[in-house]
Amino acid sequence: MNSFGRIFRITIFGESHGPCVGIIIDGCPAGLEIISGDFEKDLGRRMGGLQKGTTSRKEDDVPVFLSGIFNNRSTGAPVTMIFENRNARPQDYEKNRSIPRPGHADFVAHQKFSGFEDYRGGGHFSGRLTVCLVAAGVIAKKLLKNILINAKIVEVGGERNIEAGLQKAIDAKDSVGGIIECGVKGLPVGLGEPFFDSVESVISHLAFSIPAVKGIEFGAGFRAANMFGSEHNDPIVDKAGTTGSNHAGGVVGGLTNGNELLFRVVVKPTSSTPKEQESWNNDTSQIEKFSIKGRHDLCIALRVPPVLEAVTAIALTDLLMLDKKLLIIDN
Amino acid sequence: MNSFGRIFRITIFGESHGPCVGIIIDGCPAGLEIISGDFEKDLGRRMGGLQKGTTSRKEDDVPVFLSGIFNNRSTGAPVTMIFENRNARPQDYEKNRSIPRPGHADFVAHQKFSGFEDYRGGGHFSGRLTVCLVAAGVIAKKLLKNILINAKIVEVGGERNIEAGLQKAIDAKDSVGGIIECGVKGLPVGLGEPFFDSVESVISHLAFSIPAVKGIEFGAGFRAANMFGSEHNDPIVDKAGTTGSNHAGGVVGGLTNGNELLFRVVVKPTSSTPKEQESWNNDTSQIEKFSIKGRHDLCIALRVPPVLEAVTAIALTDLLMLDKKLLIIDN
Amino acid sequence: MNSFGRIFRITIFGESHGPCVGIIIDGCPAGLEIISGDFEKDLGRRMGGLQKGTTSRKEDDVPVFLSGIFNNRSTGAPVTMIFENRNARPQDYEKNRSIPRPGHADFVAHQKFSGFEDYRGGGHFSGRLTVCLVAAGVIAKKLLKNILINAKIVEVGGERNIEAGLQKAIDAKDSVGGIIECGVKGLPVGLGEPFFDSVESVISHLAFSIPAVKGIEFGAGFRAANMFGSEHNDPIVDKAGTTGSNHAGGVVGGLTNGNELLFRVVVKPTSSTPKEQESWNNDTSQIEKFSIKGRHDLCIALRVPPVLEAVTAIALTDLLMLDKKLLIIDN
Amino acid sequence: MNSFGRIFRITIFGESHGPCVGIIIDGCPAGLEIISGDFEKDLGRRMGGLQKGTTSRKEDDVPVFLSGIFNNRSTGAPVTMIFENRNARPQDYEKNRSIPRPGHADFVAHQKFSGFEDYRGGGHFSGRLTVCLVAAGVIAKKLLKNILINAKIVEVGGERNIEAGLQKAIDAKDSVGGIIECGVKGLPVGLGEPFFDSVESVISHLAFSIPAVKGIEFGAGFRAANMFGSEHNDPIVDKAGTTGSNHAGGVVGGLTNGNELLFRVVVKPTSSTPKEQESWNNDTSQIEKFSIKGRHDLCIALRVPPVLEAVTAIALTDLLMLDKKLLIIDN
Repeated sequence: MNSFGRIFRITIFGESHGPCVGIIIDGCPAGLEIISGDFEKDLGRRMGGLQKGTTSRKEDDVPVFLSGIFNNRSTGAPVTMIFENRNARPQDYEKNRSIPRPGHADFVAHQKFSGFEDYRGGGHFSGRLTVCLVAAGVIAKKLLKNILINAKIVEVGGERNIEAGLQKAIDAKDSVGGIIECGVKGLPVGLGEPFFDSVESVISHLAFSIPAVKGIEFGAGFRAANMFGSEHNDPIVDKAGTTGSNHAGGVVGGLTNGNELLFRVVVKPTSSTPKEQESWNNDTSQIEKFSIKGRHDLCIALRVPPVLEAVTAIALTDLLMLDKKLLIIDN
Repeated sequence: MNSFGRIFRITIFGESHGPCVGIIIDGCPAGLEIISGDFEKDLGRRMGGLQKGTTSRKEDDVPVFLSGIFNNRSTGAPVTMIFENRNARPQDYEKNRSIPRPGHADFVAHQKFSGFEDYRGGGHFSGRLTVCLVAAGVIAKKLLKNILINAKIVEVGGERNIEAGLQKAIDAKDSVGGIIECGVKGLPVGLGEPFFDSVESVISHLAFSIPAVKGIEFGAGFRAANMFGSEHNDPIVDKAGTTGSNHAGGVVGGLTNGNELLFRVVVKPTSSTPKEQESWNNDTSQIEKFSIKGRHDLCIALRVPPVLEAVTAIALTDLLMLDKKLLIIDN
Repeated sequence: MNSFGRIFRITIFGESHGPCVGIIIDGCPAGLEIISGDFEKDLGRRMGGLQKGTTSRKEDDVPVFLSGIFNNRSTGAPVTMIFENRNARPQDYEKNRSIPRPGHADFVAHQKFSGFEDYRGGGHFSGRLTVCLVAAGVIAKKLLKNILINAKIVEVGGERNIEAGLQKAIDAKDSVGGIIECGVKGLPVGLGEPFFDSVESVISHLAFSIPAVKGIEFGAGFRAANMFGSEHNDPIVDKAGTTGSNHAGGVVGGLTNGNELLFRVVVKPTSSTPKEQESWNNDTSQIEKFSIKGRHDLCIALRVPPVLEAVTAIALTDLLMLDKKLLIIDN
Repeated sequence: MNSFGRIFRITIFGESHGPCVGIIIDGCPAGLEIISGDFEKDLGRRMGGLQKGTTSRKEDDVPVFLSGIFNNRSTGAPVTMIFENRNARPQDYEKNRSIPRPGHADFVAHQKFSGFEDYRGGGHFSGRLTVCLVAAGVIAKKLLKNILINAKIVEVGGERNIEAGLQKAIDAKDSVGGIIECGVKGLPVGLGEPFFDSVESVISHLAFSIPAVKGIEFGAGFRAANMFGSEHNDPIVDKAGTTGSNHAGGVVGGLTNGNELLFRVVVKPTSSTPKEQESWNNDTSQIEKFSIKGRHDLCIALRVPPVLEAVTAIALTDLLMLDKKLLIIDN
């Protein structure tokens, strides 16, 4: 349940305030050069505390390699990376909350795990674990050498300008959501499978594993509901399958068509809004006002692009391997 | 690649113009009553030819049980159902097309399968196979006795009124898309898993396996990008976890929260539009005008609701079994 | 639960006295020539009624192709084959037995499936389903072009001579078991994985799915318990890894070492012995004498070699695909 | 490839001379009490250095819990345990050997992973990783509360007496193999599935993942080849399915029959024999004499019983969960 992939397969573990969070990558081919420096850029993009609107919790976010790497190369055995939770302060561990926070997993996790869940900072449900996804994504991207994945935030708080959207949040003393667009160039034709393993199925599966994502659309997406077939169809203009438009987002019949793979996800506003809220108090058995303590991201969407790129890279690496199109590592 | 599910597991097979299409359900508990009549309603809803805007290809769509059912009860062994392709006319089999149809899998399937694909009527990529999904969904729904799944079309051709949307298509001599909304009542709290097997991940995975689906959103979905956190958060109003609003669509932290599960998918306009189109002709090596022959659905979205209900039922049955919450069949 | 394999994946279905038994192969590459004649030899070897000591139930055992084959070539979509149960005589269907037959699945199936199992002729547990394994094996063997798999019976009823072993059974009016040896030549070095997907793990998994197999050993097998390390170790004698002996049976560290893969399985004596037996009668609640009616194989082991070859071919095809060593089909 | 199980699922990682070896258990129910002391007994049984005939490498073998445990209880999230490799001495790391050791994975790993494998002490192929299997087995055994698993060595170096077998090795200055017998009492009827997930299939799959295991047999096993059907069949003697004999080893039709599950595995003699050997030298391109340095187990089979119990417990836990027969943890 905490694993994904068939050949390039990841397994995620850890809790927000446990000793570490981590990930295993099984199926990484032997011989790939992997060094700490590879991870800096994407982990830095994801990290909070550096950007207006993101949290001040600071972790070094330096991967510790536990297995599968020898002399700076993958060995073919499972690659395990952990990130220590140095910044967690045990003395701050909140008790199991009397008011389960709206928008958070508090209530559902408590029910699902019969009260045995690690509730500290969201436990295993914490966005902290996305650091592991980003790290696995770095390795996947290295395998996808000539394939370019680029995710960027295109809307914050309903505004096309990030600054304006954040200002809206600051003015309202509230949190805001956003929309991320992700494009992938350089894919071969024919990745994915009809029906259950369509490219859209696999990417959406992983995209919804990113906390706070609430929707995904490919190409024209929901705008397709307003289009005629003659508009939406992308005419093929050459032998290689290049299309004159890209309303399909690069996917037809569940398979990549060789054009840019293009999709958008929506990220809900940060559940930990600075604004006072109301919700059920289990101790007093009534609805009560309360406020979320501490500093949180005003717009968690700002940190999602590298995570979305990562899961996209992971999904595509696995599909390429399934299709036997990712074979040779030249070092 | 043509299978889905962990405990309640389906495998789909067949081609549009082969002898049949079919599905195997592995993991169906023994003792469930299954009779032909169970399938009539949902298969009828999906069937074309009865409704303005749908195709005139008529198949009996009566399931033939090949295995796993004995004395009208499931035996615990794999349940196999096929649907014969009686209405396929071999003499009509188009040759491998010189013009790969825009919006269809013609081009990508040809590339993926090196020209060996069964190209007749879309082959294995055909929407014909959704009859199998609906049939498996009927069995899943029988297992989900007190859980109500209801999908309905909420928009056709950009109009909230089906008739108006179809008229738009007829007037334009073109095809149109639509939006389907699906709600599920009666789910327990805690279905799904953090990260990779979130309810949203699993449902979106299967929803995108329905041909022509290009987007999915849960609860407020893309509207969340315009909301403040204090608006989007659904306050909990009682001990059972009932929320005052449902912007989360019944899913928090990837798990069901006991409120209505609510999501929408967008279906692109039928690729086989009656309108003349242009695309690449492999024989002449130039872009040419062409028209799709035969009768096709003006709005394929009209037939999607029972398919969406079916895959939702399949996904939920598997999640319930994984969570050991679907145990007893009382006969 | 009725599926096996990761890339080359089979799913089995059907009952002994239902309309048919069948198998789906998912992951068969497109372009492989597949014609009815391919199956005759191995299906014939498995078929009863032709050989002293085998049952007289005669089925045509001609595969009916339901999907995945077009113009005598695999299309890349799932290949479905069924075998009709023409020789089943409904009027003979025994009722759910008052005496569960020793050595058969009668009692355990009844318990597992709460009495809803198809009990006719063993239902889904019947050896009849091995016809499907043999058929899938034929396709796997075609993919393994330069790899030779050969299983032969080496012992019947404790005798190294088949005739002598059968005569022993005839004289005793009882059934006997046997030992099958299987060798595979032409395998590359390095198939399999450390630990859970060792070649021995995967092959034994499938070998034990053949009804009546009760043991398996690789290379020297149980004789290794009597050997010194210096005897058992196979010295490497050249750069290619050729070994001077083959006590390892071609597998070291879970991986093929390029030498002949060699293993033996034991097949228990046919449970349906002609001899009178005693067992519990559920109707009378006491132990009673009874006899199995009808004609049965005196030595079911005689029919196992093609089944063992088949599952070996299936296992190796999947491992080769996982290892990306089975890539190109030249037609 | 380094994972096993469907609901109770383990993933193994690490190398003999890397920072640690470890295991993730996904699917462990929430609320199980887990403390360090639980592991002492079985880890102690497996540990070398305490017993005549076992290696002197000493590791503390104390599990470090990285995730999934909170307040001494499982949380329902993945349980990760690592064992640090404190006793590994970096200065001793042998270089990639010119003579691949017979019976070891040196040659095959080098081929499979193109020379990028971690060759130090066998790397990921090392028996060191069985410490992780034993640890996972401890958790599985705690879940199998009323099910008793007991493995014991029944033969060493061809002798029924351990001391005599070891003395044989000492006298010959060579290593010896052994046979382990494992029995499981308290299993319900009906665990396992027909064909691919027979109890025998699943247990043998895991048993062969233990390094050095070369054969497995259930019940009468290979002796069945010498038996008549009337002898081998176990008569049922009461309503509960108790059998008068147990030649089937507690498995009929692939399912447990409620009697003791009984099987034996053979463990080859330790490949690292103290005796001088001959093998190919890649540097000199000729066959040469050589000796294995260091102290090794004279009979690795002595350490296998707790490992065999562990994988048996893991397999059975998963099958029980699949069968929804392991539901409630009472604390």
